[in-house]
Amino acid sequence: MHCIGIDIGGTKIAGALVDAGGSVIRQQRLPTPANDPDALIDAVIGLIEELAEGEEVLGVGVAAAGFIDAQQANIIYAPNLSWRNEPFKSKLEAKLSLPVVIENDANAAAWAEYRFGAGVGFRHMVMLTIGTGVGGAVITDSKMLRGGFGIAGELGHLRMVPNGLLCGCGQNGCLEAYASGTALLKAAKALASSSDPAGQRLRELQSGGQELSGQEVYSAIQEGDPGALGLLQEMGSWLGQAVASLTAVLDPEIVVIGGGVSVAGDLLLDPIRSAYLEHLPARGFRPELKIIAAEFVNNAGVVGAADLARVSLAPKVN
Amino acid sequence: MHCIGIDIGGTKIAGALVDAGGSVIRQQRLPTPANDPDALIDAVIGLIEELAEGEEVLGVGVAAAGFIDAQQANIIYAPNLSWRNEPFKSKLEAKLSLPVVIENDANAAAWAEYRFGAGVGFRHMVMLTIGTGVGGAVITDSKMLRGGFGIAGELGHLRMVPNGLLCGCGQNGCLEAYASGTALLKAAKALASSSDPAGQRLRELQSGGQELSGQEVYSAIQEGDPGALGLLQEMGSWLGQAVASLTAVLDPEIVVIGGGVSVAGDLLLDPIRSAYLEHLPARGFRPELKIIAAEFVNNAGVVGAADLARVSLAPKVN
Amino acid sequence: MHCIGIDIGGTKIAGALVDAGGSVIRQQRLPTPANDPDALIDAVIGLIEELAEGEEVLGVGVAAAGFIDAQQANIIYAPNLSWRNEPFKSKLEAKLSLPVVIENDANAAAWAEYRFGAGVGFRHMVMLTIGTGVGGAVITDSKMLRGGFGIAGELGHLRMVPNGLLCGCGQNGCLEAYASGTALLKAAKALASSSDPAGQRLRELQSGGQELSGQEVYSAIQEGDPGALGLLQEMGSWLGQAVASLTAVLDPEIVVIGGGVSVAGDLLLDPIRSAYLEHLPARGFRPELKIIAAEFVNNAGVVGAADLARVSLAPKVN
Amino acid sequence: MHCIGIDIGGTKIAGALVDAGGSVIRQQRLPTPANDPDALIDAVIGLIEELAEGEEVLGVGVAAAGFIDAQQANIIYAPNLSWRNEPFKSKLEAKLSLPVVIENDANAAAWAEYRFGAGVGFRHMVMLTIGTGVGGAVITDSKMLRGGFGIAGELGHLRMVPNGLLCGCGQNGCLEAYASGTALLKAAKALASSSDPAGQRLRELQSGGQELSGQEVYSAIQEGDPGALGLLQEMGSWLGQAVASLTAVLDPEIVVIGGGVSVAGDLLLDPIRSAYLEHLPARGFRPELKIIAAEFVNNAGVVGAADLARVSLAPKVN
Repeated sequence: MHCIGIDIGGTKIAGALVDAGGSVIRQQRLPTPANDPDALIDAVIGLIEELAEGEEVLGVGVAAAGFIDAQQANIIYAPNLSWRNEPFKSKLEAKLSLPVVIENDANAAAWAEYRFGAGVGFRHMVMLTIGTGVGGAVITDSKMLRGGFGIAGELGHLRMVPNGLLCGCGQNGCLEAYASGTALLKAAKALASSSDPAGQRLRELQSGGQELSGQEVYSAIQEGDPGALGLLQEMGSWLGQAVASLTAVLDPEIVVIGGGVSVAGDLLLDPIRSAYLEHLPARGFRPELKIIAAEFVNNAGVVGAADLARVSLAPKVN
Repeated sequence: MHCIGIDIGGTKIAGALVDAGGSVIRQQRLPTPANDPDALIDAVIGLIEELAEGEEVLGVGVAAAGFIDAQQANIIYAPNLSWRNEPFKSKLEAKLSLPVVIENDANAAAWAEYRFGAGVGFRHMVMLTIGTGVGGAVITDSKMLRGGFGIAGELGHLRMVPNGLLCGCGQNGCLEAYASGTALLKAAKALASSSDPAGQRLRELQSGGQELSGQEVYSAIQEGDPGALGLLQEMGSWLGQAVASLTAVLDPEIVVIGGGVSVAGDLLLDPIRSAYLEHLPARGFRPELKIIAAEFVNNAGVVGAADLARVSLAPKVN
Repeated sequence: MHCIGIDIGGTKIAGALVDAGGSVIRQQRLPTPANDPDALIDAVIGLIEELAEGEEVLGVGVAAAGFIDAQQANIIYAPNLSWRNEPFKSKLEAKLSLPVVIENDANAAAWAEYRFGAGVGFRHMVMLTIGTGVGGAVITDSKMLRGGFGIAGELGHLRMVPNGLLCGCGQNGCLEAYASGTALLKAAKALASSSDPAGQRLRELQSGGQELSGQEVYSAIQEGDPGALGLLQEMGSWLGQAVASLTAVLDPEIVVIGGGVSVAGDLLLDPIRSAYLEHLPARGFRPELKIIAAEFVNNAGVVGAADLARVSLAPKVN
Repeated sequence: MHCIGIDIGGTKIAGALVDAGGSVIRQQRLPTPANDPDALIDAVIGLIEELAEGEEVLGVGVAAAGFIDAQQANIIYAPNLSWRNEPFKSKLEAKLSLPVVIENDANAAAWAEYRFGAGVGFRHMVMLTIGTGVGGAVITDSKMLRGGFGIAGELGHLRMVPNGLLCGCGQNGCLEAYASGTALLKAAKALASSSDPAGQRLRELQSGGQELSGQEVYSAIQEGDPGALGLLQEMGSWLGQAVASLTAVLDPEIVVIGGGVSVAGDLLLDPIRSAYLEHLPARGFRPELKIIAAEFVNNAGVVGAADLARVSLAPKVN
């Protein structure tokens, strides 16, 4: 039997019917109804019904950015959707005849990698999803680490620097403030608007009168512009330092780097690996982990959400 | 049936016969044979045989400071005992007719708290043991977090300050460099040898010509000396900042503070609580955890080691 | 003979006729012509002519926020006025029959304190002007420290935290990012928009729907609100840490704290003093400096600019 | 007429008769009498008498590591010589018929560079002397910056990292803790005793059973060993960051790098230059200073001390 995975993003909702092997049978996308919770719920229900049509479906996993509670039923806090304490599971189940589990989006993506992608064959995995923010997920001993209140794995809020850069979470110095796509773009804008010769190419790429865009930064990286590459390396260094610190806590076998920024590949991964080694506590007296790129390109969220629903709805032996 | 717990410290080896409810039936101590691995193994075997005499024993748990591998069989690295890659389990089992599991000492102490002490009733617990160093242990979903290579939960090596104080692990800025008993004593010595008026009482307590001792610092704290209390509060602040950062990763329900320095009670715990709240990411948008003192005074290591052996040797259902 | 002092601020231009004892004979204010350099020059000339009318005037000192060159003739960079490499002295002298010297505004304010205010009787003084930003000035051996290119004393850009908060200068971790009025307001807004109980009073003071204003933060401080006072103390702690670091470089006898935020008096100065002592290198083995409040309320800029013109235009003996 | 310069080091006392052009006419060395203040004074007097014999001498400048008071008469604190509040000038003058001025050793070395070496032609110079510690000196507008209590220019105690590495001055995070010869050796020892492949060559150079020596580190650098060069570059980066921060305060035209470690030349200077540019506040909107190596090899201390005595004893015009 198949499961349905739904991934609610800031601009679009993706949905897929997924089989037990992680293959997408059928998929669909909708724009996210902005600022209208009821319309969003209706849109999700419509999408599920469409995907389920004519199929026997085991259940639905819904991934969203935010804090999900330990029962995987309620959204405690979703900054993008302006939701607090939203009983999302019960609202969906009230209109559907299918069981629903709610999941954090970074957890869903990590689960897809763990089961069908870069993490296959490992039991202890950490994933960092470098997009607008820095999402995190921890799989220990083959289980998703959820924590006491459901919100473990918020690795973007590991503190890197006391009194450091402001983070959207209200604190200072979080990893996300140094190593997200947003942080990269901010650093690139600062470089472009300075007189630093390293910002020369970024200044050229910037369309007249407008602020630098993420796309332009990405072009500069692909061209091999030393200025933009320097920023990417610095970002990688912060990520590697975070991996070293996380190793002391979690001791994973593997760290998977995903998200939009990870398309930079080894240009990002090599600095991560090198900073990890440089900052690893008791280096040389312990095994060293692997740092690799995510394998999924687009469907990690829906595939992971569907498979987590499958795991969560499976009969328990003990 | 009972289990035996052994706790190998730098100066003494403690052993106890422990029942299924965590009660100590019988116990014994020996001095640690210094720098002689074979003598140490013989001493541990002698202790086990003595404790086991006339009893039906399920198995033995041996706790030691250091990195234990994921099979709980080999000591990868034990700085105090100068051991690397020591096949401790097989050496002991070769001379005993009992199954043996090896365990990190901070894990053993945390397990005692989790099963029979401050952590009873919780499923997601973090423990920080503030002794000479800072030991750590993580229990998630009622299981000891071991990680891919057996050395998860080394929370003393979470990095607090980039380019910060030197740590014994070879890195800079680890929690242990700011919040261990050693760090407290070092700070107290510096204060006593300065001209700072806040060091007045420490200077008086210091025996003529000798360096300040940990006992003298403890006396100053108990007297309420503002200088010594200030150092303790600073130490508590670092621990609270670490708890806030760990919350992002692990999201525990409870943090237990143990070890020799924790006898300071709320003088230490209050600054931990207050720094935790001040540095908690997304404070106000999530539940807050409890920070409480350990309940065991002396036997956490042996009781936890014995009970972890029991858990580890129990028949598996799935 | 009198001198004229002009102080060009972001919103208004102040001018005064000042005697050799630092007393204001006559004064005048105008709004700053926004974004129109020529209009600004005309306004300054009009103001000078009005103040000079019927008086024998020795010369004119003009203070502006920005980098002034070593010849005190050209404005290298004035962020608020969008000026770069502006030959301000020659433009003014072209239309006036008076000698003109250009001066940094924080230098002018410090000179007024040094000659006629809090710094009287000292020869080595540092001043920190805490307004929107953090202005600085250094007087060593009774002379204004100008540096090789005219831009010494930019004390707001002493780095306090590697990889710290972003500063308007393009760097991270500058003092100004932690201890300016802007930084205080930013911290207060963050506290008010959190769920932290310490932000309760700030939330009440905030007018419905609008962002917190500086005036509301000031009210909270005056009421003794612990939340707002905590922010002020933290700001004071950063300033004291900066003073300790500056002492290693400059070894002044006295530090004068001025600017809008300094009206908080000892609520700000006490935390500065205490952090200075805590962070002073080789404390106890050296004299300790005085940290006191500025005495001028409004006219420091014009009085200092006028007197610096007098000093600068005086005949040189050697 | 000639002056005599004396430079009291931890292991030897150097003395020279120096002419008005900075040339050494005659020189002499003695071992420093350890731990015996009276013997040291006698040794210095003997050395002066010997150098002065048959010459008409204007005066004597004596350089020593430590805090010298503003009257250049008393040694407030000299850690190496265990002196506090030593009236050195009067003790020497009591037994000599020559005027004596006391000077900090880093100031003396800087003055030699300023007058006769790398700083010729500039008026605003900073010098960093990288030896066992980090000495500093500031020349502004052609004058030695002494500060209100005589101890300005202690640039090794500029704070680089809050809560950073311990410094001998009792504080944390001082430049000296990151960029002195001692810091370099400590970092090299740590690298050699780790399992890090980058420490391979240092491990080979280390004589069996003994700790790594400074000479061995220097050999590794000269061979081009990437591990040792990496440490030197990191040290250079800290120095460059310090120069950037000092620029905000002092705005010098030139920074001279001297002391034993500076023999590494551009291997050290290039990382200093590059970190300076990267961390310069308002980069691109201001002139950039020069960073160059010291020219004196051995005699900077005695030549500078002698010439500072000459300047100090010259008749004053104003």
